Amino acid sequence: MITREHALALDDRDELRSFLDEFVPAPVDASGRSLVYLDGNSLGRAPKRTLARVDEVLRAEWAESLIRSWDPTDPAPGRGRWLELPQRVGDLLAPLIGAGAGEVVVHDSTTVNLYQLVHGALGLRGDRSVIAIDAGDFPTDRYVVDGIAAATGRTVRHGFDRLDDVAVVVRSVVDYRTAEVVDVVAETARAHGAGALVIWDLSHAAGVLAVDLHAAGAQLAVGCTYKFLNGGPGAPAFSYIAHELQASIAQPIWGWFSQIDQFAMGPVYTPRADIGRLLLGTPSVLSLAAAEAGISVSVEAGIERIASKASALTSFALDLCDQFGLDSSTPRDPARRGGHVNVVHPDARTITRRLAEECAVLGDFREPDVVRLGLSPLTTRFVDVFDGVAAVRSLAGS
Amino acid sequence: MITREHALALDDRDELRSFLDEFVPAPVDASGRSLVYLDGNSLGRAPKRTLARVDEVLRAEWAESLIRSWDPTDPAPGRGRWLELPQRVGDLLAPLIGAGAGEVVVHDSTTVNLYQLVHGALGLRGDRSVIAIDAGDFPTDRYVVDGIAAATGRTVRHGFDRLDDVAVVVRSVVDYRTAEVVDVVAETARAHGAGALVIWDLSHAAGVLAVDLHAAGAQLAVGCTYKFLNGGPGAPAFSYIAHELQASIAQPIWGWFSQIDQFAMGPVYTPRADIGRLLLGTPSVLSLAAAEAGISVSVEAGIERIASKASALTSFALDLCDQFGLDSSTPRDPARRGGHVNVVHPDARTITRRLAEECAVLGDFREPDVVRLGLSPLTTRFVDVFDGVAAVRSLAGS
Repeated sequence: MITREHALALDDRDELRSFLDEFVPAPVDASGRSLVYLDGNSLGRAPKRTLARVDEVLRAEWAESLIRSWDPTDPAPGRGRWLELPQRVGDLLAPLIGAGAGEVVVHDSTTVNLYQLVHGALGLRGDRSVIAIDAGDFPTDRYVVDGIAAATGRTVRHGFDRLDDVAVVVRSVVDYRTAEVVDVVAETARAHGAGALVIWDLSHAAGVLAVDLHAAGAQLAVGCTYKFLNGGPGAPAFSYIAHELQASIAQPIWGWFSQIDQFAMGPVYTPRADIGRLLLGTPSVLSLAAAEAGISVSVEAGIERIASKASALTSFALDLCDQFGLDSSTPRDPARRGGHVNVVHPDARTITRRLAEECAVLGDFREPDVVRLGLSPLTTRFVDVFDGVAAVRSLAGS
Repeated sequence: MITREHALALDDRDELRSFLDEFVPAPVDASGRSLVYLDGNSLGRAPKRTLARVDEVLRAEWAESLIRSWDPTDPAPGRGRWLELPQRVGDLLAPLIGAGAGEVVVHDSTTVNLYQLVHGALGLRGDRSVIAIDAGDFPTDRYVVDGIAAATGRTVRHGFDRLDDVAVVVRSVVDYRTAEVVDVVAETARAHGAGALVIWDLSHAAGVLAVDLHAAGAQLAVGCTYKFLNGGPGAPAFSYIAHELQASIAQPIWGWFSQIDQFAMGPVYTPRADIGRLLLGTPSVLSLAAAEAGISVSVEAGIERIASKASALTSFALDLCDQFGLDSSTPRDPARRGGHVNVVHPDARTITRRLAEECAVLGDFREPDVVRLGLSPLTTRFVDVFDGVAAVRSLAGS
């Protein structure tokens, strides 16, 4: 029998416990209840340092330094060196996903970044016409792939059983509903063996799982920074291209920021040879600075410790589901799941609404019958998991 | 003979003078000199309200309300209703460019937005294969057009003399070097008469000229918000589609945020029928909120008064150029120029650098021989123009 005291004891022993102090405390409602936030996999909480960092960007880098903050060579204090930002933040993020320096750039959105990489990958497999994707993947990925197939005369195939005629596989590492994790090492090798390129979507994996792109031989990936990386609402996404592919990936949105010798403003577009070749228009400085601050918290905590706590939190949640008689389709094998768990219930939509209104517990509903509980290792305590799952039980049973 | 006292007298009579108090004051350097900022056409200054607004987004909307701030129907205080933001900011901006409610959306970057509209326009003129653009247009526009032409087998023609075989004209209203303004009414009518669609780039016009898209019969436009609209570094761009074209503009980046009934996450992409059909991935909330604050200052000042002061400032600058014997290629007819003036000089690069280092005057250099001085009506005083042009004279003559 798992009790609330058991949860409190686990929190006492949690190595990452002190990181909770890095975040703005959970709000307290009118009746004195502190919010139990189990949606950090949709929007991560706000690091205190982000508030300070954005204020510095606004006051020192923008208001005081003005246009001078773009110049990456200006050594004066208070300058933002904003031209460097997309790659600087990319280099900061790289170790969290097993990428190297110069292989990651933070910019635009998962939608746009995936659009670029799918086109880029198709350009390298001109002899093949199939794009493979899971029919249950997140809409971002499905719609982008459908649009590209429609525009270029490619075929979309749902599922990955047959790969010998596939040009590009687009695949999420973590299922956004069940949290099931794909074996990235095995599936990358299988796709490459069949002559296909793979673009991994790390949106639900980055900052919670110890993804190792290099170890997997992965060459292409995208993902977002506003979930487990706590980059802020609508924070820019990231793109990863392994060094060996960078010079050969061509993409169709020819942006001024990817031009060699950008300020020469020459007559002919010639993209840079490095990861900066993916840049498009003027990057969103405020959002990038916020993302940089958020990502830095995860870097300090270390992805191995984060992943270890994610596993412990999700195990604890599933044990509670068992104890309370709640159904879940999240895998029981810790190696096969990400940082959230679900509860499957026919009244999932109503339960999710009532959790927020009556219990001060925020999860989210996913069609058709899923209450999704995101467990974000830097901000979720075991006692939050206990209170959240107990609240689901109280509503599911009533 | 124009004197500095003359400039101070013009400032005394300036109707928009009080708006300077809406902005963070210009920084003062170690020797007590206040910065003369003549680059608001590249990066506008920081409104005080933006600092307060972004702080509110960070503390109340993000840190406290968390995921609930996305919900456009949540009436609780402190909620951001972020799903509405791109269109809410678009509606705020619309009157500044002569657009109607529901015709403007703020999102992504000028590069991405132009990419969408060029593709959309080409889809409506499938019988024609030429895209017309000025060879001297800003690189953003030229590169995007070149990329689309390369990908779709279209031809790029430099110049607008012949339009009867042109599918799409892409054209900046204000030349980024000379400030020369195109006659939008006449050129829209001429292009439409020849069967071409026109996409206007308002980047150097929005917030400084009284552009009236409806009066011109213009149907498509893009532009940025970080110049005269003071939206902040890398603030998102805007797209305009006249109501009559909205349902028929199809674009190739199929984004989750443009999906009808977005959270049903259905199997088939069906774009919304309204201007929201241009939305792509999760919008950048911090940058949008900052843009909203910046744009609101211009809305309060009124675009007619802003344009009138722009004309007075640029006239004053050109009179000073004449008095000081400086060459400019900016048009003398006030109706034919935007919000900046240039000084053409063989040592332009060195002069621009020395203006910053020795005179506390920030302008910018544009290849090959242009010192560009941006005169931003809400923040530039006549005395700033006097001091700036006098500083150019002191360096140009030495």
